Amino acid sequence: MMGVAIRSWEIETKDNSPEAKDYYESIFSQGNGYMGVRGYAPEGSKKNAAERSTFFAGFFEYIRPGITDMVNQPDFSSSHLVLNGYEVESLEKDEYQELLNMQDGTLTWKYTVTDGEGRKTKVEILRFLSMADIQGAVIRFTITPINYDGTIILETGIDGGVQNLPISDNQLSDNIELLQIWGNIRTHSDGTSGGLMCGTRVQERVTAMEYRLATYEMPGVNGNQDVNNVSKVNGVSKVDGIPEVDVISEVNSIPGRNQFSGIHTSPAWNIKGVTKADYAGSIIETPVKQGNTYIIDKFIAVSSFRDSDHPGKLAAEEAERYFSLGFDNMLLRNQNAWKKIWTMADVKLETSEELQGAVRYNILQLIQSDPAKDPKASIGARGLMHGRYKGCYFWDTEIFMLPFFLHSNPEAAKNLLLYRYHTLEDAVKSARNFSLEGARYSWMASDTGFEQCETWDTGCCEIHITADIAYSMGRYIEVTGDTQFLKDYAAEVYLQTARYWASRFTYDAATDRFNLLFVKGPDEYCGVTSNNLYTVRMAVHNLKLALNAVKFMDETYKKEWELLKSKLNFDNLEPDKWKEITEKAVTRYDDNRGLWIQDDTFEKLEPLDIALHKDEDIPLYHKFSFDRLQRYQVLKQPDVLMLMALFGEDFTLQEQQAAWDYYESKTLHDSTLSFGIHGMLAAKLGLMNEAEKYFNKSVYLDLKDIMKNTAREGIHTAALGASWQALIFGYAGIWVSAGGLTCKPHLPEAIRKMEFSFQYQGNIYKVMIEQEKDAVIQLHNTQEKEAVIQLHNTQEKEL
Amino acid sequence: MMGVAIRSWEIETKDNSPEAKDYYESIFSQGNGYMGVRGYAPEGSKKNAAERSTFFAGFFEYIRPGITDMVNQPDFSSSHLVLNGYEVESLEKDEYQELLNMQDGTLTWKYTVTDGEGRKTKVEILRFLSMADIQGAVIRFTITPINYDGTIILETGIDGGVQNLPISDNQLSDNIELLQIWGNIRTHSDGTSGGLMCGTRVQERVTAMEYRLATYEMPGVNGNQDVNNVSKVNGVSKVDGIPEVDVISEVNSIPGRNQFSGIHTSPAWNIKGVTKADYAGSIIETPVKQGNTYIIDKFIAVSSFRDSDHPGKLAAEEAERYFSLGFDNMLLRNQNAWKKIWTMADVKLETSEELQGAVRYNILQLIQSDPAKDPKASIGARGLMHGRYKGCYFWDTEIFMLPFFLHSNPEAAKNLLLYRYHTLEDAVKSARNFSLEGARYSWMASDTGFEQCETWDTGCCEIHITADIAYSMGRYIEVTGDTQFLKDYAAEVYLQTARYWASRFTYDAATDRFNLLFVKGPDEYCGVTSNNLYTVRMAVHNLKLALNAVKFMDETYKKEWELLKSKLNFDNLEPDKWKEITEKAVTRYDDNRGLWIQDDTFEKLEPLDIALHKDEDIPLYHKFSFDRLQRYQVLKQPDVLMLMALFGEDFTLQEQQAAWDYYESKTLHDSTLSFGIHGMLAAKLGLMNEAEKYFNKSVYLDLKDIMKNTAREGIHTAALGASWQALIFGYAGIWVSAGGLTCKPHLPEAIRKMEFSFQYQGNIYKVMIEQEKDAVIQLHNTQEKEAVIQLHNTQEKEL
Repeated sequence: MMGVAIRSWEIETKDNSPEAKDYYESIFSQGNGYMGVRGYAPEGSKKNAAERSTFFAGFFEYIRPGITDMVNQPDFSSSHLVLNGYEVESLEKDEYQELLNMQDGTLTWKYTVTDGEGRKTKVEILRFLSMADIQGAVIRFTITPINYDGTIILETGIDGGVQNLPISDNQLSDNIELLQIWGNIRTHSDGTSGGLMCGTRVQERVTAMEYRLATYEMPGVNGNQDVNNVSKVNGVSKVDGIPEVDVISEVNSIPGRNQFSGIHTSPAWNIKGVTKADYAGSIIETPVKQGNTYIIDKFIAVSSFRDSDHPGKLAAEEAERYFSLGFDNMLLRNQNAWKKIWTMADVKLETSEELQGAVRYNILQLIQSDPAKDPKASIGARGLMHGRYKGCYFWDTEIFMLPFFLHSNPEAAKNLLLYRYHTLEDAVKSARNFSLEGARYSWMASDTGFEQCETWDTGCCEIHITADIAYSMGRYIEVTGDTQFLKDYAAEVYLQTARYWASRFTYDAATDRFNLLFVKGPDEYCGVTSNNLYTVRMAVHNLKLALNAVKFMDETYKKEWELLKSKLNFDNLEPDKWKEITEKAVTRYDDNRGLWIQDDTFEKLEPLDIALHKDEDIPLYHKFSFDRLQRYQVLKQPDVLMLMALFGEDFTLQEQQAAWDYYESKTLHDSTLSFGIHGMLAAKLGLMNEAEKYFNKSVYLDLKDIMKNTAREGIHTAALGASWQALIFGYAGIWVSAGGLTCKPHLPEAIRKMEFSFQYQGNIYKVMIEQEKDAVIQLHNTQEKEAVIQLHNTQEKEL
Repeated sequence: MMGVAIRSWEIETKDNSPEAKDYYESIFSQGNGYMGVRGYAPEGSKKNAAERSTFFAGFFEYIRPGITDMVNQPDFSSSHLVLNGYEVESLEKDEYQELLNMQDGTLTWKYTVTDGEGRKTKVEILRFLSMADIQGAVIRFTITPINYDGTIILETGIDGGVQNLPISDNQLSDNIELLQIWGNIRTHSDGTSGGLMCGTRVQERVTAMEYRLATYEMPGVNGNQDVNNVSKVNGVSKVDGIPEVDVISEVNSIPGRNQFSGIHTSPAWNIKGVTKADYAGSIIETPVKQGNTYIIDKFIAVSSFRDSDHPGKLAAEEAERYFSLGFDNMLLRNQNAWKKIWTMADVKLETSEELQGAVRYNILQLIQSDPAKDPKASIGARGLMHGRYKGCYFWDTEIFMLPFFLHSNPEAAKNLLLYRYHTLEDAVKSARNFSLEGARYSWMASDTGFEQCETWDTGCCEIHITADIAYSMGRYIEVTGDTQFLKDYAAEVYLQTARYWASRFTYDAATDRFNLLFVKGPDEYCGVTSNNLYTVRMAVHNLKLALNAVKFMDETYKKEWELLKSKLNFDNLEPDKWKEITEKAVTRYDDNRGLWIQDDTFEKLEPLDIALHKDEDIPLYHKFSFDRLQRYQVLKQPDVLMLMALFGEDFTLQEQQAAWDYYESKTLHDSTLSFGIHGMLAAKLGLMNEAEKYFNKSVYLDLKDIMKNTAREGIHTAALGASWQALIFGYAGIWVSAGGLTCKPHLPEAIRKMEFSFQYQGNIYKVMIEQEKDAVIQLHNTQEKEAVIQLHNTQEKEL
């Protein structure tokens, strides 16, 4: 496999080998937070019904009682190109290039094909999901016959004949069962416009997709003009540098459909509507002349039950609007939206072009999967572009991805947390299902929040997720100062989750201590154990957040506090038990070694020489059964170190170093959540070789297919967030705590300089960190520096 | 619900209410070890395709990859009775009686029906699965028109239109998915004979069933003669006390089928064959005269891929043979076979008729489910008459049921253990799947032994099953003295299982001890824990059996030992580690309390006042989630006490009493495995009130529906065996140990006298125990007493 070339703002491959297709489709995944689509080429739509993956944020459906899957939406890219009777898919592609432009999210395929009779055609296909018009996608087909006059046919439409391939939670079992999610499909097409509506089989959740087509013919100069440059500059009905062209009006196949206003057709284009039971499309046929260029623009609008009671109407209106705006305006609006995002999100490095590009790729993919404006959806463990883990939301969002949004787009961070607030009801139900009090968040959640994890030991025992959510709400409030959020949402979540923990600990009268029995920590290997340090400390933190919230509400929002107490049947004595647990929860610390111990059984496990057993980057569970693994003293991912990543200020550097020395050598990194956190901690500890090693694994995780599963599983969104944390919290050494914002950079040699923006307490700071120099942190657009910021670079200084 | 009347040799109900049907169908389950059938009435065959349950021992098929279900066989009882145009099923049944004769396993339904025009008919249907001809079943329909002349029609045949309803391991989830197991069904019928062959869909496992019909007309004296008395005395073609009757010859519907030799037909009977895609049957129509009695005998022979390469041929031959033998001979042969069994198996009590009957019912159901002559099948947790737990074999067989067979039919006990020997290969595979050495027996096993348990915490952690099997082989050899079995089978099992344990313990260098991490003991409630006493002690015993076997083989069977060592790649150093583990395995004992502690976490669990939370006999898991339950200090079933039940001689009476006091009050008995063992231990400890309380719950478990699930789940076979152990090991105080046979009875007041046979070291002993008298143990048919037997009754004495 050739892999990808990574440039500052571009990811490119020239590899068109069939065996690498799945990999590139993962890498070139596109998304705008509303929807995501794997990077498969529109004209290659012959893949099986589950592999053409299009997903909408928050759109799930039951696949068995209680269990949902993220629904594979109809394929709006579906296209089929025929050149002079030859299917493009059957021809060898030369000068092949696939290019992701990270500045505007456009993905372009370029190639030439030559048929059996020597006819050579240049093909370029460009697709983007608009970041400005998030229910919209645009595909432009550009076809240039190099050395012949002939005929081209493009069939393109919306294909509802897609299926789901629900993926087992079990990483060792194969997926075999295709599932038909869609029923009740209605289709229409009149040639230049068409659409499809369909409903899911269980809950009858509706999706509608509409498309509009525009076609252009451009006389060629030398048959080799740069269409992108040309087309981007222009308005809807003309292409710059080319004489005014005719835009073809529709050929009505359904009576009553009118022509688009103001657009004229050339009779040479023959456009027919085609509908089948589960497909609405158009067949576009035109004679072509050597050297001329033929353009077909497809404007797609999607809508679902999630945004309208009349998604069909909304999709149609949006499609008309996009068509009216035309390709160039649509692209421009998308580019402007991306520009605004990058202004806040970019991390500019003086380093290799490859590393700069990889950093941007990590950020790009985080943004593409984030339903930034949607308070009722979150980010799946594989984003919006792959069905792994049934599209579910894990702690990955809060602990790994959220910090990026917190500091670059607090409103998006707030919406991610509101998703948890809006699923509090199911968390309460879940606690009852477990015969416990308060609210218990699910290890894997989809739309309602109901537990989607089907493996007992994780689903039942990996309970830290509840505290992770409370922690993240606390971080949000600390970073943004948004006490309204505390009053309106977090206080209720804190109280209900505190109740959960109070019922989940077990009091031991013999020792007057509280044990947290039968849990699994972030490290998922070392058995079902008790008193896992991470989980206990996070739970205690959760209880403290609740105690503080009680005090805050009582002091600040008396009226709202009375209402909340009444809503929750709050008993004023409840905090007493919470407080008692914070004081008496069991954790293990070895004074002699200055070492925090992971849990009650960790030190009884069998030592294993990792070097002897682990092949580079292949998870050890492919060699040992999970059952056997759990009795080895090896970690899948950081556990005590994870805690230290979240509560750096609570542990001395000596404790952190002792934990690093003890645990890092026992860690297999069989989870992609592991590298970035290790990178970040190593940087904080000044272990720069280790920091670079781990950071690079995280930042190149998918781009270099480190875990050998990017093809099969898609983009690892938690790792994207962990890369950002390693960069900002590790290398740049930025950290927000109760004491304010500190900055203690540790730049690796490979990075000479970093520049990025950083939001804190409602202000935007511009941060500049350079080797051998003091960090500079400026309030955006001013020269002021904030007093709260402490810088620690070559020497410590107060600002 | 009226329930059943229990008499010395009979179980009866007069209740015909529809809501109680499932319950009686469980209670009146029939079996002969080869096959089992739930007690549904032949003429009521309209129930759904999964509720008509017929099972063959050892006949499983895949329902998903790796997971099997016990296959619901074609319904050979299928019948439909029409009296003068009225379906019997549509008429109210009067004088209803359903009677199970425990002496010969016959089940009889008797009732009268009166139609809308006042026509009254007496109906009697008798069915037995022959204990002499185990591939045979016989159904006799006896119909007497009381007050009219008219017409009766019986349709009867073999129905392949049955399905499986695979039952989830999860006790809280409902079963919803019917599964079509059978395909490729071939049917034939020529009226008085017919048959069906079918193959399972995945492995194409074949079943064949054939039936033959004989019909009789008996002039009545007063329309009320006792048909059973009459028919039982007689040969095939006549009925005693009645003039010679014509037996109807077949009406050929398929050319080439000949008449049965020597049997003549009366032209008044009209018999036609009927075949459908999945059904082969006959429609029998005859005019009837008031007071006469009309008999139709259906002889069924079954065969499968398990007993023949040509099951169709074998079934046809057997059916012909049964038909030739005729009803009375078939019944007689069955009765003789049962008589022989009861001679060894019966426990005769001087007590209430109800208790005597209940004890026999427990024994009867054990025998009915035991494939006594089959070394490649075992006894499912619900026997041969219900699909609960997918028909799988658990430790229930070895630890709960085996002792009965060991002492009443050692050959049957040997076959049960041979099933484990024959599945050793899969146990080896399973160990490899778990990345462990040797052989790991599955918690739930079907035909090959591959793990069928789909719940992680039990399937993965309840590992004592492997040691339970080794223990039981040890018991078999100890009780029978069959050292050939040790040489040929057990030695290999011991060695492979010892290897498993050696790889399953985890050495802790800090303490120089071996921990058994992440296990569950017999008590399935108290979490995934470590160093469960039962499991550790059983594993240590397993290792000791292996150590002894090495010594025995080396001393006694040098040649065979060399072969075995070579087969297993045995290393002479292996036993050193086994021995070390027996000396250094961690168990917990509290000196102060003289108390053995269940495991590492038990004493940290939250105390629960059972009386406040448990409704009588409803499992607590209906009130608390399993997750919550595991943090309460409550047991589902005996754990430390279970160990003491198996190794009474290893614990002082004080230790046993201390364990009883501590654990019994914390035990919920949410498993039917619990009562009998508690009864047995209580009797041994002389706690006679407790002994009776628990014994009665066990012995009446299904007969009085103690757990309220007999209807839905069928007969609880482990409880049957535990009842027997409570009776023989508890009340009668019989125990076999290395020191020989001891007898220390503790009869409850309700039982004045017990008499039973007991096999030991190849001899049969007749045991008589009477209140206030010394126990008498005689070698069968002699007056000799064995020196090895020690009696402890009112006073201890050596014989």
